[in-house]
Amino acid sequence: MAKTDWKAEAKALKKQLKLLRAELGAKPAKAAKPVSPLAPASFPKMPRIAGVEFAAVGAGIKYQNRKDVMLVRLAPGTAIAGAFTRSSTRSGCVRDCQEKLATKVPADVGAAIVVNSGNSNAFTGKVGDEAVAAVTGGVAAALGIPASRVFSSSTGVIGEPLPYEKITAIIPDLVAGLTEDAIDGAAEAIMTTDTFPKGAVATVQGDGGVIQIAGIAKGSGMIAPDMATMLVYIFTDAKIPATTLQKLVTRNVDASFNSITVDSDTSTSDTLLVAATGKSSAAEVKGPVAKAFEAALRDVMMNLAHQVIRDGEGATKFVEVRVTGAASNSDAHRVALAIANSPLVKTAVAGQDPNWGRIVAAIGKSGAEADRDRLTIKFGDILVAEKGWRNPTYKEEDGAAYMKQPELVIGVDLGLGNSARSVWTCDLTNRYIEINADYRS
Amino acid sequence: MAKTDWKAEAKALKKQLKLLRAELGAKPAKAAKPVSPLAPASFPKMPRIAGVEFAAVGAGIKYQNRKDVMLVRLAPGTAIAGAFTRSSTRSGCVRDCQEKLATKVPADVGAAIVVNSGNSNAFTGKVGDEAVAAVTGGVAAALGIPASRVFSSSTGVIGEPLPYEKITAIIPDLVAGLTEDAIDGAAEAIMTTDTFPKGAVATVQGDGGVIQIAGIAKGSGMIAPDMATMLVYIFTDAKIPATTLQKLVTRNVDASFNSITVDSDTSTSDTLLVAATGKSSAAEVKGPVAKAFEAALRDVMMNLAHQVIRDGEGATKFVEVRVTGAASNSDAHRVALAIANSPLVKTAVAGQDPNWGRIVAAIGKSGAEADRDRLTIKFGDILVAEKGWRNPTYKEEDGAAYMKQPELVIGVDLGLGNSARSVWTCDLTNRYIEINADYRS
Repeated sequence: MAKTDWKAEAKALKKQLKLLRAELGAKPAKAAKPVSPLAPASFPKMPRIAGVEFAAVGAGIKYQNRKDVMLVRLAPGTAIAGAFTRSSTRSGCVRDCQEKLATKVPADVGAAIVVNSGNSNAFTGKVGDEAVAAVTGGVAAALGIPASRVFSSSTGVIGEPLPYEKITAIIPDLVAGLTEDAIDGAAEAIMTTDTFPKGAVATVQGDGGVIQIAGIAKGSGMIAPDMATMLVYIFTDAKIPATTLQKLVTRNVDASFNSITVDSDTSTSDTLLVAATGKSSAAEVKGPVAKAFEAALRDVMMNLAHQVIRDGEGATKFVEVRVTGAASNSDAHRVALAIANSPLVKTAVAGQDPNWGRIVAAIGKSGAEADRDRLTIKFGDILVAEKGWRNPTYKEEDGAAYMKQPELVIGVDLGLGNSARSVWTCDLTNRYIEINADYRS
Repeated sequence: MAKTDWKAEAKALKKQLKLLRAELGAKPAKAAKPVSPLAPASFPKMPRIAGVEFAAVGAGIKYQNRKDVMLVRLAPGTAIAGAFTRSSTRSGCVRDCQEKLATKVPADVGAAIVVNSGNSNAFTGKVGDEAVAAVTGGVAAALGIPASRVFSSSTGVIGEPLPYEKITAIIPDLVAGLTEDAIDGAAEAIMTTDTFPKGAVATVQGDGGVIQIAGIAKGSGMIAPDMATMLVYIFTDAKIPATTLQKLVTRNVDASFNSITVDSDTSTSDTLLVAATGKSSAAEVKGPVAKAFEAALRDVMMNLAHQVIRDGEGATKFVEVRVTGAASNSDAHRVALAIANSPLVKTAVAGQDPNWGRIVAAIGKSGAEADRDRLTIKFGDILVAEKGWRNPTYKEEDGAAYMKQPELVIGVDLGLGNSARSVWTCDLTNRYIEINADYRS
């Protein structure tokens, strides 16, 4: 029997070790947060919006060495509209914003938005309401505006009292730092588990001048109460009454922010605020400009909504679920959400598996009207199944090749009516489990 | 410089390799399927049920070298009741069973149940209906009973035509193998992604004799259309009319099989059939015996339902979500399901993280009536939060210690009414993702 060549053996073992380490490397325990592979190439160049000033400073609420409070000052006469989580356990901030938006405001009064990350001030009882009053009251006093015009959001851990003195203590710094150029810093100050700051812009040709729209958002799970939530702030210099602005927001929130889902969970703090300063040289928004303005506002809302999905916790795929041929809009939405929220569909997408059986099953459980023998299912342009059975010319390898792309469209036609809805989602990966199972451990 | 001791080096490398392999072992690519850590210690000793015979053989539908078809022959006069998936894309077998159960049957006609694993025959259009007719017709002819008394289930891949000739070809073998003692083999023949066979037994003292109940089940995702689904067959020798039996099944299915969730997905094939042969020496079930019989039947149903959760794909925790103080039963069920299905709650449980904020958020999104200031949340007996805020004496380390147990009770009192419901679930782990993302790749 030959003598063992220990040197060769050691070399071979080293090679095996390297391979195994590489395999383990794909699952790092405490690696630095990588930017989502679905992130846009860069943060957009944000325009100044006349009448809107930003400031962001670090208050050390939870994070150290980074900005965690943003302040926005809005010029007198600014119209404000909003949309909020429908959670019955929504936070004090959300309730406060809703009450203030329902209040008639005197003309020519300024307004402000103050947002902190690191603590959501949710499920903190009466103490939480006091914190909201202290922060919004402090900002109101510093800016010389009524507290009823100061809107606030908090995002971060649930159930911990918000150390609001840390915020009130830095209000003078915030006010001193206000400038029209600081929207980028504001987008960063509101981040929590986000892997990139989110911004979107649009311009509209108004009567007698250009109207600018600029929005920022945060969010990477629909909810992750420790650290995440969806917050969106959109600013425009358009001249538009608050009631009209609210109508536009309400009309477009369903197809944008209410049509995205990372994990079917809804935050206690989700907030969208849209502020129109009226400082554009363009005339009041109406007629054909109103249509163009609504389209531009919708674009910004859709863009930010999709960026939240692109930063979905652990996401490697950006998926549109496009349902057509439904008997009603609500059925279309229900089917799209059932597919987008199905853990089995989402894990199949993560595994690049063209597992259309799971889509059939999700349609079946949605509760919407569906007839097996009228269903059509497509991956992009590939016809997978129709009339209750697999398309005889469909090839599994075509589906598998399609699923390797980072952006997917799952198309379902119910064959029952003319209603259609899309929902955007991402895949469900091991990284999602790691982020959410290991976070506090 | 010392000469390298290659032998020692190789030994050290081997040790490192072993450790790394052990670490990787927690995530084997194609390793043997380990039994769930939550499995019962053993399969129960199943009694003979007079009038029920079993057979199981391998037809090679998808699996090789194992039994994949089970046949049950039921004596003339057997009463049969059932409950099925409510999916609108339910399989041909399910529709066929539902039609047959709705049909009046002549007295003293025998019956049969035939089940295959490896192919669900779901979403296979008219061809699928033909397969059901061929299989149930073949069994009917072989046993000399009407096809309207042959019930079938199929579980496995969706959308592939069922190679039913493989089943009809082995019907003679099945019939030849029928014996009262083969229920264990039947429990194994219906397994797919299950890591253990599931059985439960109960006895009831009837008037003039003992009544036996024995049930078997399969299921380890509420759905995983490639390979899983929930199938349950319960047999008893009780004398009980079919309409009474159906009432008992309907009354107890909500609190048992409709109150478990692995991943919120509903199968196209979920089936429960209960057969009562009337062969016990005990008199017809009525009066106080009826109560005892219902309790025993419920025990068997609950036991099998919980075993399905204990075999949940990737499960490491068995969790009861117990909701009390709800305004209505449907609200209690809705809140319990919202918590049990929340990916954020399930990943927190996987991470042994007492993250009660995620429970609050899940209650909020459930759509049920809830008042933040009346909520009470408990982990087992530990009071975590009440009256809209964290219990001031609650210690995070107590919650963390509690979460380390394999069996958990999450208690929520809504403080609004007297309705209560429990739902059972498991945690959401990396293993679930691996099973469902990597299955076909």
